[in-house]
Amino acid sequence: MALIVQKYGGTSVGNPERIKNVAKRIAKFQAQGHQVVVVVSAMSGETNKLIALAKEVQANPDPRELDAIMSTGEQVTTGLLSMALMDIGCKAKSYTGGQVKVLTDSTHTKARILSIDESNMRRDLDAGHVVVVAGFQGVDEHGNITTLGRGGSDTSGVALAAALKADECQIYTDVDGVYTTDPRVVPEAKKLDTITFEEMLEMASLGSKVLQIRSVEFAGKYKVKLRVLSSFQDEGEGTLITVEEDKNMEQPIISGIAFNRDEAKLTMLGVPDTPGIAYQILGAIADANIDVDMIIQNVGHDGTTDFSFTVNRGEFAKAQGILEGVKAKLGAREVTGDNKICKVSAVGVGMRSHPGVASQMFKALADEGINIQMISTSEIKISVVLDEKYLELAVRVLHRTFGLDQ
Amino acid sequence: MALIVQKYGGTSVGNPERIKNVAKRIAKFQAQGHQVVVVVSAMSGETNKLIALAKEVQANPDPRELDAIMSTGEQVTTGLLSMALMDIGCKAKSYTGGQVKVLTDSTHTKARILSIDESNMRRDLDAGHVVVVAGFQGVDEHGNITTLGRGGSDTSGVALAAALKADECQIYTDVDGVYTTDPRVVPEAKKLDTITFEEMLEMASLGSKVLQIRSVEFAGKYKVKLRVLSSFQDEGEGTLITVEEDKNMEQPIISGIAFNRDEAKLTMLGVPDTPGIAYQILGAIADANIDVDMIIQNVGHDGTTDFSFTVNRGEFAKAQGILEGVKAKLGAREVTGDNKICKVSAVGVGMRSHPGVASQMFKALADEGINIQMISTSEIKISVVLDEKYLELAVRVLHRTFGLDQ
Repeated sequence: MALIVQKYGGTSVGNPERIKNVAKRIAKFQAQGHQVVVVVSAMSGETNKLIALAKEVQANPDPRELDAIMSTGEQVTTGLLSMALMDIGCKAKSYTGGQVKVLTDSTHTKARILSIDESNMRRDLDAGHVVVVAGFQGVDEHGNITTLGRGGSDTSGVALAAALKADECQIYTDVDGVYTTDPRVVPEAKKLDTITFEEMLEMASLGSKVLQIRSVEFAGKYKVKLRVLSSFQDEGEGTLITVEEDKNMEQPIISGIAFNRDEAKLTMLGVPDTPGIAYQILGAIADANIDVDMIIQNVGHDGTTDFSFTVNRGEFAKAQGILEGVKAKLGAREVTGDNKICKVSAVGVGMRSHPGVASQMFKALADEGINIQMISTSEIKISVVLDEKYLELAVRVLHRTFGLDQ
Repeated sequence: MALIVQKYGGTSVGNPERIKNVAKRIAKFQAQGHQVVVVVSAMSGETNKLIALAKEVQANPDPRELDAIMSTGEQVTTGLLSMALMDIGCKAKSYTGGQVKVLTDSTHTKARILSIDESNMRRDLDAGHVVVVAGFQGVDEHGNITTLGRGGSDTSGVALAAALKADECQIYTDVDGVYTTDPRVVPEAKKLDTITFEEMLEMASLGSKVLQIRSVEFAGKYKVKLRVLSSFQDEGEGTLITVEEDKNMEQPIISGIAFNRDEAKLTMLGVPDTPGIAYQILGAIADANIDVDMIIQNVGHDGTTDFSFTVNRGEFAKAQGILEGVKAKLGAREVTGDNKICKVSAVGVGMRSHPGVASQMFKALADEGINIQMISTSEIKISVVLDEKYLELAVRVLHRTFGLDQ
């Protein structure tokens, strides 16, 4: 008997029919003797509908009130799924984030989980219930309803699995696993049976939309066995996200090609090359609650340097405005930016032991006449920023170059 | 400076535009120096939509889960109204029933309020906030979400007013006050400036849909000054529901004619006339959570008696089934029933001091050839059960007979 946490996304619970199918899947697991905790998202489209309604009332919705409104979407799903389970003979009980309780900080619309009280869930599991928990939400120390940000239901699922020391956290989605790259861009893309947390982290942060990055971090940190599966297929093992790289197999150098269309780059040119510059630039950006992705600062010359970073395309204008304000204060020369860029990355733990991956990548792009605007690397990934028109070409070339379509 | 609790029904907050209008009305009260607590219903149609969704998943929705689902309707409204208030410069804060907290028993879908913690609301009021509370809902001692039954938002409003010792509880609705009868049936119906709690109680319980009966009971018990007003008119004092009858005025004998189409009657014929019969019949009905309205038992003869009562038409079949079961146990002769009936009542504290009201009523009905099936009286009301086809005629005749259209 195992304790399994299953998370179903909005598409998987998009209408009563699909909710009933999910119930059947859960019942099957329970019939095998497993204890099951289920985390659900709002029915697809509901969250956007609620946000649109809020914006009709207030152009910039108050975050606390927006959380109170948005959190109802998941709450409705928990009730519906619990009823669907009862209808086929499973005992079931719904929980809001506050009822569990999932304690978070007070950063409305982007809250972080602080702790989870698993006692209620444990009691219900031991009494034979399927426990159905609203994802994406929690409650702060004052009892205010909070939400975890887009994709937060994945994080809820992993956090619950960690709190309950579950044997496995299964993320059900509309794809059947993690692929070497997006099959819509490269039809030859292959499903991976396993991927390491580190690779998954890079893949997720680089725009592979299968899992929310925070959930992967959480899973890695708390050693939660995480599996991505399709909720529309009855067979298939999905992709298991492992703590250790598989020592028994010939490790591929590169596991996948990730990309992100949703980026914009900003550069502050001619910044005086003194300590504290990065902080002064990025501090202002962070104060405005704008997430920064790549950060690049090259060696300076003539006492100045150039400082670049990328942000989500939707926050480009706002970030640009902030930089213009900081420019004068720092005595920098100019702020430039471009929101017609993309990021393409090769990810793989194998590159640790295989030097030369970077040059192989740059050559492949050069052979296609693709100009590289920025480069950033970590131990297990190499990212390049390109003109967005090269996105598909670059992904296909790299997928082939690293032998992923074989 | 007064503390006012205002309750807005589903029609009053039916769309973003109306929510903004409600916000303006509230802001006006606050600008006059009053502290305002607002109780809101779900946007009109939302609760029915959620119930329909639930029934798509489970034909007889589990009560606990149905409460979790239904309660989201009011929660959304609180968020929207709070934002609308902020948008016009009022500080505002939303609360779910659980956040207040409104403690109830655990009778899901029909819970009763046990206590209200007013400390959070008091703190926010003192800090200059408008406090916006979700009506219709509470939370039981185990943290389960409960709802109070249809129209429960009125009860929430009055209960909050009682807990806060508010100066007045204003119920905003789509009518501008309490009328001598339904103007759709009798165009000459007049708005009452005041009505006593007892009269209102009889009117409400008899199907005048202005206020939920439980809210009137609550208001009477806790001496909450209750006023019914229109949310669509800027002027008008509505109808004040008073504790004392007005001693200064010539009291009309009858204040209004109430009616209810939604009834069904059941009779158990030939019940042995022994102690405990009423309990044995109605105990079984109560165990099935069916509300009973009128109860009539006449003197018996030949050792048996006939026992009749009315229930909501929707529960007719269920009640009939239960009676058939009880019949054998009691050795009764027969169970009969009719769900094509209506109830019409004359209500007025004045009848205490005016004998002869009943005979005046029965004569008026007889003059129109209307047969009376059952009669029940209290100190301040006389109710008759009639074939439902006579409803409009009976109401008009009685309205005229007691001089209410002058």
